[in-house]
Formats: sequence, structure tokens, C-alpha cells
Amino acid sequence: QAQTKDTLVLKPKASLEKWYDKISLRGYAQLRYNGLIESNPNLKCEQCDRSWGDGGDFFIRRIRLIFFGQISKKVYLYIQPDFASSAGTSSNFGQIRDAYVDVGLDNDNEFRFRFGQSKIPYGFENMQSSQNRITLDRNDAINSAAANERDLGLFFYWAPKEIRQRFSDLVKLGLKGSGDYGVFGFGAYNGQTANRPDLNNKQHLIARLSYPFLFGKQFIEPGIQAYTGKYVMAADQLSSGVKTNANRNYLDQRIAATLVVYPQPFGLQAEYNIGKGPEFNKQTDSIEVKSLNGGYVMLNYMARINNHLLYPFIKAQYYDGGKKHERDARSYLVKELEVGAEWEPNKFLELVVNYTFSSRRFEDFVLQDNLQRGSLLRIQAQVNF
Amino acid sequence: QAQTKDTLVLKPKASLEKWYDKISLRGYAQLRYNGLIESNPNLKCEQCDRSWGDGGDFFIRRIRLIFFGQISKKVYLYIQPDFASSAGTSSNFGQIRDAYVDVGLDNDNEFRFRFGQSKIPYGFENMQSSQNRITLDRNDAINSAAANERDLGLFFYWAPKEIRQRFSDLVKLGLKGSGDYGVFGFGAYNGQTANRPDLNNKQHLIARLSYPFLFGKQFIEPGIQAYTGKYVMAADQLSSGVKTNANRNYLDQRIAATLVVYPQPFGLQAEYNIGKGPEFNKQTDSIEVKSLNGGYVMLNYMARINNHLLYPFIKAQYYDGGKKHERDARSYLVKELEVGAEWEPNKFLELVVNYTFSSRRFEDFVLQDNLQRGSLLRIQAQVNF
Amino acid sequence: QAQTKDTLVLKPKASLEKWYDKISLRGYAQLRYNGLIESNPNLKCEQCDRSWGDGGDFFIRRIRLIFFGQISKKVYLYIQPDFASSAGTSSNFGQIRDAYVDVGLDNDNEFRFRFGQSKIPYGFENMQSSQNRITLDRNDAINSAAANERDLGLFFYWAPKEIRQRFSDLVKLGLKGSGDYGVFGFGAYNGQTANRPDLNNKQHLIARLSYPFLFGKQFIEPGIQAYTGKYVMAADQLSSGVKTNANRNYLDQRIAATLVVYPQPFGLQAEYNIGKGPEFNKQTDSIEVKSLNGGYVMLNYMARINNHLLYPFIKAQYYDGGKKHERDARSYLVKELEVGAEWEPNKFLELVVNYTFSSRRFEDFVLQDNLQRGSLLRIQAQVNF
Repeated sequence: QAQTKDTLVLKPKASLEKWYDKISLRGYAQLRYNGLIESNPNLKCEQCDRSWGDGGDFFIRRIRLIFFGQISKKVYLYIQPDFASSAGTSSNFGQIRDAYVDVGLDNDNEFRFRFGQSKIPYGFENMQSSQNRITLDRNDAINSAAANERDLGLFFYWAPKEIRQRFSDLVKLGLKGSGDYGVFGFGAYNGQTANRPDLNNKQHLIARLSYPFLFGKQFIEPGIQAYTGKYVMAADQLSSGVKTNANRNYLDQRIAATLVVYPQPFGLQAEYNIGKGPEFNKQTDSIEVKSLNGGYVMLNYMARINNHLLYPFIKAQYYDGGKKHERDARSYLVKELEVGAEWEPNKFLELVVNYTFSSRRFEDFVLQDNLQRGSLLRIQAQVNF
Repeated sequence: QAQTKDTLVLKPKASLEKWYDKISLRGYAQLRYNGLIESNPNLKCEQCDRSWGDGGDFFIRRIRLIFFGQISKKVYLYIQPDFASSAGTSSNFGQIRDAYVDVGLDNDNEFRFRFGQSKIPYGFENMQSSQNRITLDRNDAINSAAANERDLGLFFYWAPKEIRQRFSDLVKLGLKGSGDYGVFGFGAYNGQTANRPDLNNKQHLIARLSYPFLFGKQFIEPGIQAYTGKYVMAADQLSSGVKTNANRNYLDQRIAATLVVYPQPFGLQAEYNIGKGPEFNKQTDSIEVKSLNGGYVMLNYMARINNHLLYPFIKAQYYDGGKKHERDARSYLVKELEVGAEWEPNKFLELVVNYTFSSRRFEDFVLQDNLQRGSLLRIQAQVNF
Repeated sequence: QAQTKDTLVLKPKASLEKWYDKISLRGYAQLRYNGLIESNPNLKCEQCDRSWGDGGDFFIRRIRLIFFGQISKKVYLYIQPDFASSAGTSSNFGQIRDAYVDVGLDNDNEFRFRFGQSKIPYGFENMQSSQNRITLDRNDAINSAAANERDLGLFFYWAPKEIRQRFSDLVKLGLKGSGDYGVFGFGAYNGQTANRPDLNNKQHLIARLSYPFLFGKQFIEPGIQAYTGKYVMAADQLSSGVKTNANRNYLDQRIAATLVVYPQPFGLQAEYNIGKGPEFNKQTDSIEVKSLNGGYVMLNYMARINNHLLYPFIKAQYYDGGKKHERDARSYLVKELEVGAEWEPNKFLELVVNYTFSSRRFEDFVLQDNLQRGSLLRIQAQVNF
């Protein structure tokens, strides 16, 4: 009986706290419409938004349900399925984006380990939630580091308590912050990007340093980040006939610099990266390790008008390199200019209007010599709950 | 600092209200058993219930989790995945049925816009939730207007406050109402039906008028609705060898009339539609625009016995036309008679027993000359939560 | 008006109780790492863990969200999707594991019917949740009775109130109980295993008897269970060229014995089963009904050290037979020894380290003559919420 009483102490406590105080649900959803003005139906961007190009009427880009909570003093849970994921020819299935746990090492969780699938800490715009980002899509140059920005692994983050609060404020204040991925981050992960199995038993390694300085009232966040690893071209990514190296393992390494001047009210956001990775070469019909480089600059502004928020912006981007997670590590040369604005009439609704001028060369074994130019008007309605 | 304080006002309010007072979860699930009496294993109905025909033991028809809430005075959220959806050869994946937001224009939300994937307002039985419907499946004639009754688009609904309340009461009173799709509805949507990408950059347009009159104590709701658009036969819907027109765009337009006499205690429900749409023609091995027509009449009764509810019914239906979302726009000639009853011992459980006499001709490029007759006994247990 | 008032009594009560007091959410997730020590990349186990063998870095084994609740005095709901399910080449989709309702016949729900998809009551280790199990995977011998341990059907369970409490305590006390599948269980189910449609209109029948005795302070649970039915080899399970019998229906029947001495602090768990079922025969290139037998013995220990729990264990298993739900009813001869320990620093986190010595022959039409031996170190982190 003594044994029984002792063990009783450990577990049943759980039933005293209410589940809904431990776990919360929030989320957001995005509906797009690209069909209003579109000069070239062959201008597409697989990673940005599958509704570019022909047949681009209404399109659900994201339906996110986020189950999260500080389930104990040192354990934080975050599970985020997206219900706008495709499986075969049918759309809008629920698939995991994030599924991770943070385990703090100290009482303020200044030092913490993150286990599971989460964003790899590479690039400010990648870290920034799509819920907060002003532009409709991330830039090709840095977003091509990882499909869905995520991978499966083990990460370590450190930030002092005061800066953790600042990361949080930069979102809450409407300044479009990245959230808290630490002042310093370090990690090891599979390297095949989100929701894809590992193929080579070798991990990618990554490190990042980012600090949100406060100069007077102005927040400025410079950052630097780099990763290295071997990416394996999976069988289902390859066109029949394309040549690869023997074990289909390719060097995949990049370094990026970031500068964010938060919009108070004028903002500037710029990132650039260089590196090497697999890329289709149409001269040889093969996938080879090639150099890549590119980045973007965005100017934005935050205006408050009668409790409405308005963020006009202009963004220019460039990318020359491959996209490892696309067919045959598709080769890209992207030059793009976007102008637009995000309007938040209240905290529940957002509307973005985005005019894009684009020149995109994207080529794989099947689609060689494919340079597409054009412009399109894009509209997005977002609900936050 | 002023800037910071000002912006602080806008966002952090969210944390004051509890998430579970803003978002609610409810749902229902249906388990079917068709194997008791079944005279013809080749008698099937893809749109009704994939467990008709051979191998029809236990079958989960729906597992619905509904996340919903009036998240602000004028913004209503409704996200409903179904966890009984198939992906490839495996079943019971979570896939979106509804994902929409209603934005009210006035304080009573009498005028509202609906963004996202939702039911297209065509037909009373289509609007009525499967949670409330008495018969196990919807009629072929009107349900063939849209797979899963839904599509992605932008809709406008209007109903006076008093009638919004009445729509709500017609469900709460056990009268099997449709829910509130407005007295007047109007919309534009992709036209390829739920969870399928748009293919032609042209929208379908729809309008509906429906009014639940109260004569003495008796509710009677007549309605009329119509839509028009171009449906594109998708590549994965076509048998190899079947002929189509050049761009695979087909006229798709219908008009339907509805009369509902709510069961107080005797009820009558009748709908009929005519129109044109793609249909397989076995004489020419091609998909052509053809006329379609059909509808149903149902007589039902609501009995209360010791707080149990019992709804006996008899329903006859007829449909002659194509089903655009099936293989080769499969050609149908359906004559069917159903008798049965729904029993609700309490608000959590329902049991339906349904005897079906059916004659179904359904033909595509692969399965030509296919007339199937027979009868079967079907049973469904439903849980509401 | 009388009619209206009367009917009002029945339904609107629902709105008085809060949804979150009726439905609760809990769950758990498991992250594995198999890449540290692995002597043979061709040593794999499809049913255990797809990350054995080459490319086995980080791997999410389970992400379970459980929506459950006693929604009325006699109706209990349990819906459990797993968000680590694969669909085609992409991972981490949400797919149902459990979706059932228990309907009690008496006020203590001692007698209850279970409708829906749930675990078939065959084997103690199968019933025991992966959240509670010490070893990383279930034994091949008894787990091969049903993929994912589950099927769709109708079950009856009986247990006296006092023993229902004991089943619950055996989990809460950290003794790794099975949960409550009744002292006596009986059921009829499709027989094609979880999330697969029925193919033969014939049900499997199952019965189980299991009783957790208390001798002094020591809990001991012996059990016996058996099932019989016809399994149909589905078209998508067959290699092209493999021979089957005419209607692909195969006898599938087993009987198993269980003995569990709960770890107070020393524990012993042993199960064994014999039976017949479909199995690939490489002599004839065909799938035939063959005999099968196998089981396991595990010794374990529960230690409490400063409120941490530690469970060291050693487990030996053997299986000679087919796995009906794998390609060509793959033929197996498994001999395996595992040693390891589970460490629970608190109720939210668990870490398992498992060293496996394995000899596995697994052969189908494509992979004939395939005996793999080796050893590997496996690590799992689990979060409970």
C-alpha cells in the first residue's frame, strides 16, 4: 500500500489543472485572388504560391491551427498543422508545419533546447511568421534554403530575459518582428526539409546570431547565419533521364547577412546570402553543385489612421541559383519588384494588395529554356483568431 | 516612446479574453453498416457513400471537428475538417470541408460577406447539414451541382435579424432546417468544386432566394436558386481515350426550385432542377454539354415519444444527367425510393434505418452499358458532440 | 405554439454547458533518433518504425491529438488523429487512429458498446498506449494481428466498477497498465485493419478475457484472447507476378495468452500467440495460408529517485509467420533482444534509450532470400500534454 500511495503522488496532479489553461488554440487563414490582372499565364512560382499562372482564381494559401502552451515551467509545446496542404491531386489536407517542444535549462528559459520539426534559424524573413509578414511571399534567395522554412532536428537557443521580452514586443507592437529564435541559435537537423524523410544519415549544422538593438526609440536588428550539410536528391524529385552524381548527395551550404530597421514609422529590411548547392545544368543535363547568391531590400512604413494600421511597402529581390527541393534542383534566375500595402482595420482582419513585376527563368530537365516575364495584381484577405 | 505606447494599445488586448470563449469546438461522426441486406453488389453510388456494393461492412462516413466562433462583433469563423477523407488508398485523413469567415456590415450582421470555402447556396438539402438531414444521402439531382456541396469563393448573404433567428430556431426545434444561408444570397466561386484548384480563371456566379414563412404555427419555406459558369474537366478525371472539346471547358448551369413544409408534425420537402452540363456520351465516346433534370419529394413526420424523437420518412428521387466531378463526367439515370426512420433517443445519439430500392444507370468510357438495380438495408449511428 | 415550446425543451440545453467542460484535448508526441550506432543499414522493420535502416536520422514517430470526453452520463467520445501519418511521398499528415463512442448500458457504464474505429482487444501490449509502453515498439508476433492495432467495428466490453477503477489506477500509478478494455470483451469488425476499406462483407470475430488480480500489494493480470475471420489481400498490396488464391480471401485466426506481473518494483510481461494467416511462400511464389507463432518476455523494474521515474528493461521476442497487411503478406522470422531504460524526469517528458540486437528474415515476391542481422542504438524523446 505504501508503494501505491507514493506513486499516487506523482501522476494524478495533472487532473487538477484545466486542460484549456495549459493548451491554447489560435490560428490564421489566408485567401488569395490572383486573377484580376495577370499578363503572362506561364509566369509561375512553385514555392511562393501555386495559384500564380493560369487557372488562378480564388486560392486558399494557409489554414493554420496552432495548439500551444507552456505546459510546465520549463516545457513549451507548439503543434501547428496547416489545413491547406495538398496530397496527390486533392487539396486542403491537414499536415504538420511545426511540431516541437522547448525545454528550458533555467527558470527564465533563457537557455533552451528545441526538439522536433521547426523553422531552421536561417534568415529573418524565414523566421517571421506569414501571419505577420507584409509581402505575400518570402524572397526566393533565402527561402530556397528550406522548403516550408523547416526541418526536423535538435536546436539550442539562447537569449537574455530582457531580449526575449523585446522579441515578443516587436511582434505585439505591430513592428512585424521575427519572434524569438534566440540571440544565438545553433542546431543539427536532417537537411531534407520539412515533412520529408532523411536520406543520408548525415546532419546539417546551422548557427545564427541576431540582436535587436534599441537606439533611442528605434529598434534595429542586424543578424548573421550560416549552415552546411549534404542534401540528397530524392528519387521522386528526378525527371527520368536527368543525370546525377553516384550517391545523389550534394554539398548544401550558405551564409546570410540580415539588417532590419523596424518601421517606426520608416523601416528597411535587407538580407543577402551566398553559397553552394545542387542545381540543374541544362548544358550537361545533370544536377551539379553550383554557386548561388541573392537577396532582397524592402522599404516599408507603418501608419496608424483611426486605429487602423497601414503598411505600404516596396521590395526588390534577386536570386541566381538552384532550388534543391524542386524537380531536378530546378535552376533559377529571378528579378522581381513588388509594391503594395497591408491594411489592418482591426486585429482580426488584414487585406494585402500586391503588384508584382517579375522576370523568372526556371529550368529543369523537362522544361529547358524557360524565361518568363510579366506582372500581376495579387490580393489576400487574412483572418487572425 | 509615444509611438511605442500608442501601438501597445492596439494588439495586446487579445490576451485579456480567454481563447476558449472566442473559439469553440463541436462536431459529429457517422458510422454506417450496409452489409445486412444487399441484393446487388454492383449497385453503387460514388457520391453518396463509397460503402455501397461489395465489401460494404462497417464504414465511417464522416468525422467532423468544427472550430468556430464569433471572434469579434462582426467577424465569424468556421473551420471544419472532415477526418474521414481518403488520400490515395488510405482512408480517414483530415481534409477541409468548410473554411470561411463571415464579415458583417451592420451590427446585427444582417448583411455579410463570406470569404473562403463553404457551401454554394444551391438547394435546401445541400444547405442542410448532414448532422440534421434525415435520409442518409442527399439526392443525386441537386447534389450533383457540386461535389461535397462546396466551392471556394466570395459570397454575400442578407437576412433580417428576425429571420436569422428563425433559421436558427428551425434547427434547434428539431425541424431539420438548413441553417442560415440568407434570405438572399449571391456569390462568385471557382467552379471546380471543393478542394480542387481552379483551372480556367473564370468564375461561376450563383444567386438564391429562400424565405421561411410562418403561417399560424406552420413554417413553410419556398426557395429558388440558379448558377452559371464553365467547368473544366481536369486531366486526372479523364479515362485515356475519351474525347473532349478543345479546351475542356464546358457550360455548367442550373436552376432549382424548393418547397419545404417543416414537419409539424407532417412535413413535405421537394426540390427540382433543370440545366446543362458536361456528360459522357457513349454513342460518341466523348464528353459533351447535355441537358439534365431531376429532383425529389420527401414526406416525413416528427413524433415525440418520452423525449425521444422519431422521424419516419419516404423519399422518391429521379435524375437524368451527368456528374461533372466524376470520371468522364459520368452519365446517370437514377430512379430511387427510400423508406426509413431516424430515431434520436437523446441529443447525443441518432440511429437511422433506411431501406433503398434503386435503379441506377451510371456509365463512363470504361464502364459502358451499366444499368444496376437492387435494394439494400442501410443503418447509421451518429454521435453529436 | 405549444408544439414549439415543447420541442424547445429538448435541444437548447446544450448551450448551457461549456464546450470545454465536455470535450478535452490532450496528447503526446515522439521524436526518435536511430543514427548513432547502426551496424546494418538493410536491417529494417516496416511495422515498428520506418526510420530503421539507412537514412535514419531524426524521425517523428507519433504526434497525437486526442479529443475526448464523457459527453453525457452514458456516452463517451474518443477521437485521436495522428499527425505523423504518411500520404504518398510526403509525411506528417493528420489521420485517424481512434474514432469511437462508448455507449453505457448502466449508470456506472460497467456494460458498454463501442462503435467505430478502435483497438481490437487482442494482446496486452497492443492495448497499452504507446504513451505508456516502455519499449519503443511492440513485439512483431502479436502486433502483426492488426496494423496500427485497430479496426472498424462494434465491440462490447464489461468490467465491474471496482475493476474499471483498477484499470485506471494501473496507468496513473506509473505501472504501465493497458487502460480499460474490459474484463470481458467481444466484437465484430471489418478485418482489413485500420483506415482500410472492407473488401469481403465478412466480419472478423474476437473475444478477450483479462483480469487484474491484487495479491497483497502486487497486481497480476493474466489474459486470453482469440479472433477469427477472412482477410482479403488488397490489389495495392500485391507485387505484380505474385500468385494468390481465386478470391484473395485468406483464413486469419489466432489465439494468444498473456501474463503481466506489474513492476512493484520488479515486473514481468509475457505474451505468446499461435494461429494461421496469409504468408508469402517463396518456394511457390504465392500467398498461402500458413501457421504462425511467436511471442515475447520482458523483465522490467520501476525505480523512483527524487521523484524521477526510471524503468530499466530487457525484452526477448520471436516470431515466425506472415504479416498480412504488408506487401505480399510478407514472410517473417524474427529473433530479437532489447535492453534499455525509460527515464521520466517529470510527467511531461520521457526519454528512452534502447539497444536492439536483431536477426530478421523478411521476404516477399520482390525481396526474396533476405536475412538481415545487426544491432542499433535507438533514442526517443516523448512529450506528454
